[in-house]
Amino acid sequence: MSNEHTELHTSIHDWIRQHREAGTSFLQQLVKMPSTQGHEQEAQLFIAEKLRELALDVEVWEPDGDALQSHPYFCSPRSHFTGSPNVVGVLKGSGGGRSLLLNGHMDVVPEGNREQWQDDPFSGRVVDGKLYGRGATDMKGGTASLLMAVEAIQGLGLTLKGDVIFESVIEEESGGAGTLAAIVKGYRADAALIPEPTNLRIFPKQQGSMWFRIEVKGRSAHGGTRYEGVSAIEKSVTVIQHIRELEELRNARIIDPLYAKNPIPIPINIGIIQGGNWPSSVSDTVKLEGRMGVAPEETLEAAKAEMSDWMAGLSLKDPWFESHPPHVEWFGAQWVPGSVDPEHDLMKVLMQQYRVVKQDEPTIEASPWGTDGGLLTQVGETPCIVFGPGITQVAHYPNEHIVLDHMFEAAEIIALTIIHWCGLEA
Amino acid sequence: MSNEHTELHTSIHDWIRQHREAGTSFLQQLVKMPSTQGHEQEAQLFIAEKLRELALDVEVWEPDGDALQSHPYFCSPRSHFTGSPNVVGVLKGSGGGRSLLLNGHMDVVPEGNREQWQDDPFSGRVVDGKLYGRGATDMKGGTASLLMAVEAIQGLGLTLKGDVIFESVIEEESGGAGTLAAIVKGYRADAALIPEPTNLRIFPKQQGSMWFRIEVKGRSAHGGTRYEGVSAIEKSVTVIQHIRELEELRNARIIDPLYAKNPIPIPINIGIIQGGNWPSSVSDTVKLEGRMGVAPEETLEAAKAEMSDWMAGLSLKDPWFESHPPHVEWFGAQWVPGSVDPEHDLMKVLMQQYRVVKQDEPTIEASPWGTDGGLLTQVGETPCIVFGPGITQVAHYPNEHIVLDHMFEAAEIIALTIIHWCGLEA
Repeated sequence: MSNEHTELHTSIHDWIRQHREAGTSFLQQLVKMPSTQGHEQEAQLFIAEKLRELALDVEVWEPDGDALQSHPYFCSPRSHFTGSPNVVGVLKGSGGGRSLLLNGHMDVVPEGNREQWQDDPFSGRVVDGKLYGRGATDMKGGTASLLMAVEAIQGLGLTLKGDVIFESVIEEESGGAGTLAAIVKGYRADAALIPEPTNLRIFPKQQGSMWFRIEVKGRSAHGGTRYEGVSAIEKSVTVIQHIRELEELRNARIIDPLYAKNPIPIPINIGIIQGGNWPSSVSDTVKLEGRMGVAPEETLEAAKAEMSDWMAGLSLKDPWFESHPPHVEWFGAQWVPGSVDPEHDLMKVLMQQYRVVKQDEPTIEASPWGTDGGLLTQVGETPCIVFGPGITQVAHYPNEHIVLDHMFEAAEIIALTIIHWCGLEA
Repeated sequence: MSNEHTELHTSIHDWIRQHREAGTSFLQQLVKMPSTQGHEQEAQLFIAEKLRELALDVEVWEPDGDALQSHPYFCSPRSHFTGSPNVVGVLKGSGGGRSLLLNGHMDVVPEGNREQWQDDPFSGRVVDGKLYGRGATDMKGGTASLLMAVEAIQGLGLTLKGDVIFESVIEEESGGAGTLAAIVKGYRADAALIPEPTNLRIFPKQQGSMWFRIEVKGRSAHGGTRYEGVSAIEKSVTVIQHIRELEELRNARIIDPLYAKNPIPIPINIGIIQGGNWPSSVSDTVKLEGRMGVAPEETLEAAKAEMSDWMAGLSLKDPWFESHPPHVEWFGAQWVPGSVDPEHDLMKVLMQQYRVVKQDEPTIEASPWGTDGGLLTQVGETPCIVFGPGITQVAHYPNEHIVLDHMFEAAEIIALTIIHWCGLEA
């Protein structure tokens, strides 16, 4: 490592250390704004204000539901986004460098059962170096690390050659309409980074996923003469086992070493089952709802087609399904998978700066869940890597929190990555 | 057959033929009163009025929920019966004869989806010799045949030696609290007859049944890393199969020839399944609700114990169940099974009068569903046979109806049965 690089690292490290209190306070304010779906405005305007302070060119807009709905990758339970703005800030470089898109989502999942929280779910309280609250890990802590990185670069008076595009989006938790709206607006870059909660692991690949609903049919009868009917509950047992076989088949094909630690790289999870309406009647319908994992290099369409073809095979197991084929519907959320070559230049830069800051070798994996990175990579033509300070295990759970040291480490690694990717003006 | 018997039959037959119009009109009026649970009063007072016309000693009372609740066989979703009276009429015999209890329930199940009815569900309309409406078959038509039988005997000026106790009860469809209340009041007899819809088959044995609820536990996790959780839906597949094996075991023991035509004499029906609350989460609970058939000679307690013991065996199939045993709860409705020796004297009398009226051999079977007959036999110490004119297949269904000819045939058979059982004063 050259002296110049060592000095740069020291400067960034010191700047961030000196601004720990401000960084913590910033995240605290952000967590206190309960930006669940439909309630993102306050937090988004807070971000926009911060971007203006940093002298970025700021755009704030509510995505146009009508226009988005015709987009093949649009997926949202909402058709309008009034009161739910996207925010983008652009830091123009001096020219001649590579551009980097930094993306974080502002929507948080609902807090769930408050009784399972030891404190107010939106407290932002710091205990033993951990900041608590819904969204602290997923992913306001990641967003705070992005902004600290940009602020550090500016605070040290450094000028980047390439552009930095910072996006704070809505709707990640519901299918990515916020990031899609930013892509449609034309925001693209040479590469992208999303600091979702990866425990500081680096994910060049992310699993996609889609929700499905399967209706299994039976024929009702009185329970006392149940042999006169056909139980949709019994038929759904066959369907569940059939889907389990599809999962095995699909996962046997996954030989990517990035999934080596993962017993089921692309699971098919049946999360909901519901059928029948009277204990002593034979149920004539069972509804199954689940999530199908989609491999990083796979398309949503291919995965859907494989599921449909597979379900057609049910009639070989039980002729009932020939006359009563289960209906498969794709509904609700979907996340496009994403894959970036592990040898991509941004991977090399990020891994190197990880080593510099952490004095350790980074862990490279493929994520078991989807992010907006798939949309950026596949639809926005902006290869995206996921790397962030949040704790995977506490995302979406009660008592969600982030380790503040990790947030500052991530800010440091990201600041250096921006500098080495975009290039510095001498 | 003696001449006396032939003349008696002819007199009964003629009386009933001459009163077809009145009998039809009576059933029509009864069906037009929508006596679903909680709304039985109008129809019950109509019956009480009829009994008074026939000069029976009439008692009308609302069962005392508080007092009944401590009874081990009390089972009802209600704890009070205000506005839902029971009606009993007693026709005292001249003495020296056997008493007979005639029981019919006035409660009808709800009409369900009205769009599936071709006419008003409470029309009472007669088309092609069939009278339509909720309750026509189950079992106001049966009740009408009982009352016609009593009226014929009185109309012909015949005097019975034994008492006839006529009961019009509430709550049969919900666990028998009406019949239980009459038993608790002390109404008993040497034998009983219930004209539930058997298609004129004779059932000396009736299956009992109980409702159960089983909670199957899992451990939640994100669907993308579903191997970190334990799917209650997958575990419930094991539970469903385990229950299926119990059903096989229990039915293999049924060697009663009365069940010969019945592929599964005492089914265990799982009617409802419900689990999970998010497609991309691993479900941590599945609730199963169903109906367990209870053999005529079995007690509810023995059947419950067998289910509990069987469920304990789940841990041999999957150690998960050792630490997370499914919880079995008995809830909602129950019907006590009943069994009368096919050689019982009332069976002989009823079968003989069937032959006289129908000129054919009666079909003797065991019922695949419960009636209040189990309570009468097991709790009221009044051996009860089920035989009635309604159509099994249309009970509880849209467009329920009864064939009026069958109702008049039943009235004829029942009148002769009363006469031969109770004895006639010379």
